[in-house]
Amino acid sequence: MTAPVADAPARRLGVLGGMGPLAGAAFALRVVQLTPAQRDQEHIPVMLYNDPSVPDRSSAYMAGGPSPLPAMLRGIGTLIAAGADCIATPCNTAHLWFDDMQAASSKPMLHIVDAVIEDLQRRGVRGGPIGILGTPATIALGLYQKGLRRAGFDVVEPIEEEVAQFCVPAIAAVKANRPEDGFAPCADGIRRLAARGAQAVVLGCTELPLAMPTARRAEFDVLLSDSIDALALQAIRHVRREQALAA
Amino acid sequence: MTAPVADAPARRLGVLGGMGPLAGAAFALRVVQLTPAQRDQEHIPVMLYNDPSVPDRSSAYMAGGPSPLPAMLRGIGTLIAAGADCIATPCNTAHLWFDDMQAASSKPMLHIVDAVIEDLQRRGVRGGPIGILGTPATIALGLYQKGLRRAGFDVVEPIEEEVAQFCVPAIAAVKANRPEDGFAPCADGIRRLAARGAQAVVLGCTELPLAMPTARRAEFDVLLSDSIDALALQAIRHVRREQALAA
Repeated sequence: MTAPVADAPARRLGVLGGMGPLAGAAFALRVVQLTPAQRDQEHIPVMLYNDPSVPDRSSAYMAGGPSPLPAMLRGIGTLIAAGADCIATPCNTAHLWFDDMQAASSKPMLHIVDAVIEDLQRRGVRGGPIGILGTPATIALGLYQKGLRRAGFDVVEPIEEEVAQFCVPAIAAVKANRPEDGFAPCADGIRRLAARGAQAVVLGCTELPLAMPTARRAEFDVLLSDSIDALALQAIRHVRREQALAA
Repeated sequence: MTAPVADAPARRLGVLGGMGPLAGAAFALRVVQLTPAQRDQEHIPVMLYNDPSVPDRSSAYMAGGPSPLPAMLRGIGTLIAAGADCIATPCNTAHLWFDDMQAASSKPMLHIVDAVIEDLQRRGVRGGPIGILGTPATIALGLYQKGLRRAGFDVVEPIEEEVAQFCVPAIAAVKANRPEDGFAPCADGIRRLAARGAQAVVLGCTELPLAMPTARRAEFDVLLSDSIDALALQAIRHVRREQALAA
């Protein structure tokens, strides 16, 4: 049996999941599906910690709910103890605590906003404007707005009422295992931002891509950047690069 | 935030995956999708160890290849150290080493053949005959034949040439991320066993359900027992029962 990169140690990707649990498991699945491989042994070792008990991230910021940070740091510790060499977090809102997580982690944490920016650039999107859909907390705190503007993109963001009308019900439907009920509100949100000039729309909450079946994404005039797939591709590239460096 | 069972400690399901990696991740996804839940915090905590470097299980039995047992025991140890309270292994062929795994594990291991028998009984299948599709090793070693006969079912099994013609290419296509190429050979295998009198056919390798999209399963005159879904349902029931007992 030969490894894909000769003599390279297997780098293990840790996944801080459970936020939500469907997004965590779907991310692990997309890592496998997006890895070029002919047989089991050519895939990337993945350790998924899918802990759905992490307190709600949006509520913590928007309604003074309990902080998710202690639970997230326990998850990071568990993943590193289990051998993770780097960690991806398939939850956009969790990235509001990114600096705290990276400071507490002895291994590199991947950033989902960087992954989406790479995805936009790889797909030829230049300048924007880029529309953003996401949780009330990520939109209000400007998670994507700051990153995109730093990278030279203009941004179109939904107002608070639009987040409540389009994003919140789509996210709730996916969390309740009814992704098909999330399609219509998410689609309305995309169209609203497209009408305001967006050239691409970021599905900037990991529940939103699960409400948007791949086969139906061509129904929109704008390119959709899927934050699950973007993070999966970034993670695969990171692990392959580390394997190559170690070879 | 209230837990689904008041005051019950969260029982954590460990998943010994990677055999193959798509099956491991798909299993984690099905656990989420098959859990009745309205929000994140009602789902089951899952730790997936998706290690694709485990030596090929069929080759070990059929061609004298390296044993997968040491790697599987390392995985079990990692999962228990990370807090798993019970372990599911979404790989049928790995169950040829079930007794060795259970003997080495301080936590209960779920058995995929028991899960499939429960699935058949729950769906009203009585007596059989039950057809089996799977890897060369599981068919040759009688993994399902023994369990099904003990449970009172008659069995229809493919001959060696049929395993090579129908099962092996379907499994290889899924492992190479081309599940759509696995449909035709898997479908031919199902029809062959149905023509020989099977009332139901067990998709007894965790790659096979991935080659059989849910929407196309009604094309067959026989009931299909999906070993991924059967194991996921068994795992959910096991964890919920443990939570209730601990409450």
